[in-house]
Amino acid sequence: MNDNYLSAANTGANNLSPHSQLNTYSSSLSSSSATASLSHGAANSMKSQMTGPSEAGISRSPSTSNRETQKKKIGHREVKDGVVHYKKISTDELKKSIQFGIVHFLSEQNRTQMDRDLLMQDFQIVETVQFPKTGSPTTPAHDYSDFKLKVYAPYGFRYLRRKFNVNEVDFMSALGDSELKEVSNPGASGSVFYKTSNDKYILKTVQYQECEFLKTLLAGYTLNLLQNLINQKFSLLPTIYGLYCYQKYELASFLSDRTNIRIVIMNNILPSDVPIHEKYDLKGSSHKRKASKEERAKSNPTFKDLDFLEEHPNGLMLDEKNYDNIIGSIKRDCLILESFGIMDYSLLLGIHNLEKERNNTAIEAYYEARINNPAYNNPSVNSNGSMSASNRYSISTGRSIENAFNISAVPAKNSKGDRLLLYFGIIDILQSYRFKKKLEHTLKSMITDG
Amino acid sequence: MNDNYLSAANTGANNLSPHSQLNTYSSSLSSSSATASLSHGAANSMKSQMTGPSEAGISRSPSTSNRETQKKKIGHREVKDGVVHYKKISTDELKKSIQFGIVHFLSEQNRTQMDRDLLMQDFQIVETVQFPKTGSPTTPAHDYSDFKLKVYAPYGFRYLRRKFNVNEVDFMSALGDSELKEVSNPGASGSVFYKTSNDKYILKTVQYQECEFLKTLLAGYTLNLLQNLINQKFSLLPTIYGLYCYQKYELASFLSDRTNIRIVIMNNILPSDVPIHEKYDLKGSSHKRKASKEERAKSNPTFKDLDFLEEHPNGLMLDEKNYDNIIGSIKRDCLILESFGIMDYSLLLGIHNLEKERNNTAIEAYYEARINNPAYNNPSVNSNGSMSASNRYSISTGRSIENAFNISAVPAKNSKGDRLLLYFGIIDILQSYRFKKKLEHTLKSMITDG
Repeated sequence: MNDNYLSAANTGANNLSPHSQLNTYSSSLSSSSATASLSHGAANSMKSQMTGPSEAGISRSPSTSNRETQKKKIGHREVKDGVVHYKKISTDELKKSIQFGIVHFLSEQNRTQMDRDLLMQDFQIVETVQFPKTGSPTTPAHDYSDFKLKVYAPYGFRYLRRKFNVNEVDFMSALGDSELKEVSNPGASGSVFYKTSNDKYILKTVQYQECEFLKTLLAGYTLNLLQNLINQKFSLLPTIYGLYCYQKYELASFLSDRTNIRIVIMNNILPSDVPIHEKYDLKGSSHKRKASKEERAKSNPTFKDLDFLEEHPNGLMLDEKNYDNIIGSIKRDCLILESFGIMDYSLLLGIHNLEKERNNTAIEAYYEARINNPAYNNPSVNSNGSMSASNRYSISTGRSIENAFNISAVPAKNSKGDRLLLYFGIIDILQSYRFKKKLEHTLKSMITDG
Repeated sequence: MNDNYLSAANTGANNLSPHSQLNTYSSSLSSSSATASLSHGAANSMKSQMTGPSEAGISRSPSTSNRETQKKKIGHREVKDGVVHYKKISTDELKKSIQFGIVHFLSEQNRTQMDRDLLMQDFQIVETVQFPKTGSPTTPAHDYSDFKLKVYAPYGFRYLRRKFNVNEVDFMSALGDSELKEVSNPGASGSVFYKTSNDKYILKTVQYQECEFLKTLLAGYTLNLLQNLINQKFSLLPTIYGLYCYQKYELASFLSDRTNIRIVIMNNILPSDVPIHEKYDLKGSSHKRKASKEERAKSNPTFKDLDFLEEHPNGLMLDEKNYDNIIGSIKRDCLILESFGIMDYSLLLGIHNLEKERNNTAIEAYYEARINNPAYNNPSVNSNGSMSASNRYSISTGRSIENAFNISAVPAKNSKGDRLLLYFGIIDILQSYRFKKKLEHTLKSMITDG
């Protein structure tokens, strides 16, 4: 079997490097140890029934909804009378409450919090704000149920957003100015996904254990980010912009059950202004890595490793510099993921095929610029100590994209010679806890069965 | 009382800033809260009997040794038959063993360890190497007692040294090529201090609690360092190059007591090639902050806050840029010290007076360059992501100094108009644990006495 998904090759007119197969994607993504490879296999066998989008890289248009599928209760997500509920709270109430609470919190933070150095202790802090329906001296009235908002590491995430070059006003505007779009295609986890109307940010519900796990990651994640900034290197890890917990509560009763809904805000790996023709969830393993029939029936299916090898038996060709950048990023990212015992992650790959949109001159120009100008591949640290966005351009507008921290579109070719733009990102890193739990359960059942 | 130790003023011919008193050193060094100021006071009252050098900033020539003073046992340091012992191990055996062990470890590390990103987990790692007198397949024979060397965070400190722009070969050479000089003037803690023969590095014994405390600081310390690198800012915090534990042991007996001697390697704040005419240990407090008679009798005494105010009632004048740099550093450094509950630290200030060495043209030229060229104050991050040493020059040689991470000499004037070079560094940060213990003890005795 051909494991070489990506290979360095001569795709650019100005690039005279020989057509050499330098390395394989899968040998970098999989750990070199046999144990870790085995783990990937185990993870795959458990995930093989899973369908739907991963935690990032939401399909651009909602897929044709199937009434019967939507009626099912998956995890905490349930459809009642055509309305999606999460932990028995209607999606409308949930998304409007969190929009209201988060934007209020952020604008207060902007008003009062001075920029300063980040401290280790910032990751431990949790702030709670009460939002009674009737309003309070510090919070405005609203039309939803009384709720509390817990804000995890408020200064820590504010610092991270600055380093990711996210403008706070733009961020609040994206979150609060228009309705969040629910992605109607739920993952197997029963999580609810929302996208901001500008397609930049994803809000996803996470379980208690995922939330706790993320909190333990934050310091190492930041250490990694700062090193990338100093070394002017990219990361394919998810960019995480905030972690919150919505709590519905009744003022009248101290005994009432509190509903905790934890929300993480992340980047959207796939672009909003470039059509994606193929989408893959890759693990560097071949065991049961084929998209299900249900997934294939969707309008924007997410394919898997075996589908990729069938579609691209000779892999994709990148020029040497882009290839080295991607492989270098994957190696660095895997080092930190491994150090936290994270095994059950995927590489999301979105492919735009330029030959399928021949009349789009903006994308053509972008492709040529990326191929001919190696400077596009060198991010620079600007005077604020954040990644400079000056090298990235939004294809549709020509303006710079503020949130384009991760490697933006990478030019490539398939074996037919079609020009491609590739979008990469590592996803599903928070499911390690769930994975470990499942593995434990599986091992226990094996012992019992034997 | 005049609390303005430093003030921004026009000291340079090319600097036309008005003679303005911008801020005070003491208001920055002391915490703004009343509680913290009180703590400083309490700390001072306990430290007022202490004499001798602090953990860095060793006087350049050994002071006239007093036989009677040397006979005393202070802490674990004891003089027997004219030979200094620490935990009953002769200083000669101790320093030769640690030189031997550390240099062997570092050369092995250099041979085998690849550079990679730093991970959070690197700070937890402790490696132990056995050095039997007779040698082993992996260690050479030696003339001292059998010993073990524990190396704390070996990759963590290697990474820090690289960021501090310390060349590993130069570091090993400084540690191993010639005998360590014991600084004969012990601190009240009973610690033993060694200096490398090139005066760059200080090796100091630390207590178990100080060692444990340092280990908890490392991640936050590194976070702070990386932020300073990104923001191209200086820090006055001690630069820490390594933490080790020497253990003497007898192969024959498993029951024999093991002697643990913990050693931290740090920078020497004071220069080896510029005479220091005044030296101060400052806490931003006036309570009992006067050097003792014993201290004053020394050839290179360390004075305190009240002595400074007596000698410099109008403070020292810095140009605005240098003043802002120093105050900015102190503010950032105090933020991290406070976040770790470190209260009992000092600012070491060494003053070279150019008028007292009129014939030294190298120092004159350096002073003029620092005054006239603001670029000297702007460190730049080089391609290795470490502080560039290109802006610093060793006065005697004109060559760049590899280990000059901290702010190098800052030009200033005293009220008489004498031109000065100031050397700054924050010291005694590890004694927080000891301080807390003493405070607890004092409070307990107060309650009992009442």
